[in-house]
Amino acid sequence: MDRELLIEAVKRQMPEKRYRHVAGVVDTAYVLAQRFGGDPDKAWLAALLHDYAKAWPTDRMERIIREQGLPAELLDYDKELWHAHVGAWAVREELGIEDEEVLDAVRYHTSGRERMTLLDRIVCLADYMEPSREFPGVARIRELAEHRLNEALVAGFDSTIGFLIERGKTIFPLTILARNDLVREIAAAGKASER
Amino acid sequence: MDRELLIEAVKRQMPEKRYRHVAGVVDTAYVLAQRFGGDPDKAWLAALLHDYAKAWPTDRMERIIREQGLPAELLDYDKELWHAHVGAWAVREELGIEDEEVLDAVRYHTSGRERMTLLDRIVCLADYMEPSREFPGVARIRELAEHRLNEALVAGFDSTIGFLIERGKTIFPLTILARNDLVREIAAAGKASER
Repeated sequence: MDRELLIEAVKRQMPEKRYRHVAGVVDTAYVLAQRFGGDPDKAWLAALLHDYAKAWPTDRMERIIREQGLPAELLDYDKELWHAHVGAWAVREELGIEDEEVLDAVRYHTSGRERMTLLDRIVCLADYMEPSREFPGVARIRELAEHRLNEALVAGFDSTIGFLIERGKTIFPLTILARNDLVREIAAAGKASER
Repeated sequence: MDRELLIEAVKRQMPEKRYRHVAGVVDTAYVLAQRFGGDPDKAWLAALLHDYAKAWPTDRMERIIREQGLPAELLDYDKELWHAHVGAWAVREELGIEDEEVLDAVRYHTSGRERMTLLDRIVCLADYMEPSREFPGVARIRELAEHRLNEALVAGFDSTIGFLIERGKTIFPLTILARNDLVREIAAAGKASER
């Protein structure tokens, strides 16, 4: 499918305001991929598709999770996490996307995961910091993202964890595993640079 | 072993200052057990033993974790977590404590775990709030603990998670699972009381 058709397919899934966010993530992911040695075309595609199912009705997402064998554990956690897995399933079904790296970046863009790929990191970070985002700490994330991908992404996860704690909500364990990996990589890089 | 001998055995494992903390946890756990329908004698015993290995040398704890088949995953996380598992192993070996409920309360007093028992919760909370503890948020934990065990313990875990985030450290996943359980129980109790 060519780019224009993909864009049109994505736009049909969501209100205009949500698509403006998607367009911001697309631009940001493209720049981050260039900056940190990623594949800008894959970053463009994964970013375009990342919120494909975001505006879908909750009951439709729940049905797909149950019927298509997506991780049932998701249903015990915030609905905010559902659209990422449902979206990865949907863009394969409906748009014929088969690139597993792109599908994973869509699937884990909200939660993160252990051993995140560079593409996972780029899409996840772009989602935190695209120009229309406004939340406490976003300026610091953008500042870190000028030079330090992992540090910026940890700051993003930290803002999510802090938000959930403030509101007395559960925390998705995979986000903690993702953050722990990044924290260890940062520490190891710090030690290496001291040598 | 009678109480006086147990106290002497515990005192021999640690400097006087650490024992003053233990004595604070003992008193607090006893009161919390009375307040929330726990077993005050088991709370007394688990609290007395909870930091048995706290002052042991790191290399001794590491050797015991490796040689005695304690969870190797611990070694990937902060040393602060090691003494709880090592302590549970040690009080069985050295003091002949066989009560699994007491051993679990020692074993999980730092991390928490899924499906924490009432005794687990009491010892863990007492460790956060005993009178000599001073950290941001401890007053709020003590206030909550007047009436709400789960809310107080969530506030304790939140203070730990916040502390680790501030310092850029890894977070032990079991603590998140423990907190998620409690958050869900609190939400369910809130819904039940609305009916």
